[in-house]
Amino acid sequence: MGTTVNGKPNFITIAHIGIFTHGKPNLISLGMGKTHYSNQGIKENRTFSVNIPSENLVQETDYVGLYSGKKHDKSGLFEIFYGELKTAPMIRECPVSMECKLHNVYDTPSHDVFIGEIVETYVDESILIDDAVDISAVKPLLFDMSSRKYWSLGDEKAKSWNVGKEIKKKLQL
Amino acid sequence: MGTTVNGKPNFITIAHIGIFTHGKPNLISLGMGKTHYSNQGIKENRTFSVNIPSENLVQETDYVGLYSGKKHDKSGLFEIFYGELKTAPMIRECPVSMECKLHNVYDTPSHDVFIGEIVETYVDESILIDDAVDISAVKPLLFDMSSRKYWSLGDEKAKSWNVGKEIKKKLQL
Repeated sequence: MGTTVNGKPNFITIAHIGIFTHGKPNLISLGMGKTHYSNQGIKENRTFSVNIPSENLVQETDYVGLYSGKKHDKSGLFEIFYGELKTAPMIRECPVSMECKLHNVYDTPSHDVFIGEIVETYVDESILIDDAVDISAVKPLLFDMSSRKYWSLGDEKAKSWNVGKEIKKKLQL
Repeated sequence: MGTTVNGKPNFITIAHIGIFTHGKPNLISLGMGKTHYSNQGIKENRTFSVNIPSENLVQETDYVGLYSGKKHDKSGLFEIFYGELKTAPMIRECPVSMECKLHNVYDTPSHDVFIGEIVETYVDESILIDDAVDISAVKPLLFDMSSRKYWSLGDEKAKSWNVGKEIKKKLQL
């Protein structure tokens, strides 16, 4: 996640993410512990970015989650670009970046849950097939808090909205 | 996702999920299109379950997402068990099931976003290592809407809160 804090681009790894909707608006969520430095940047500018790291960025991804922007300047770690919102820094090295404006904050005792509306998505053309994101080309880093490890995406197993028809056939026999 | 609708257990595949917090309370989210049959069951009983399917359940997982409980009785598809909430049916065949009470509903034009508090988690002992869930043993089905496919989990890539220290070493040279 990228935001501007005290006038400088800052990045942090976020474990607790979610999809609220697809359509209009497209809403996503980030559950961020209240002590993080980035939270004040989102509240000030009401913008942030969500950047999907590939496997080759595993060290950088972990680094920005390990060290706080309070003490560590992380603005030089990536090649940064901006979109129409101007204050949501995005990471050129990530194959997919989403530029978001703050839609709402859902308050909990421990976490600010930032609900963002995606205003634009930027992708590296090399990961597109027929104008859609090819997840196998993205090679996303997957995080599991139980093992405290990053994992890769595996093989495709089946077509969605399709393979379940086999059950219907069996039930009708 | 499991809930009781019109007195009967019903199950549906949910694409839009999220983690809000960990701690007290543990909150998760489900973004569910407003036309789904299950939504009324969650609103009536204020309970639901979240069940993680393994790869071997790919047909069943897709089936409950393809056909609505309005017309299809899905209560006989799985071995069902209940916990303390009594109205959140869980799936024995899934290695991880979370029993949730409704915490709040975040309303959007297209989706009800149900925010649930996890009151109990039930796991198959075969997927535990040192009392923690072993994600590689779960073999979760991963869903990607862009490809309209289910994917498997791949290999572990690196330790979290660890591999990023390499970047710090490089920056200090």
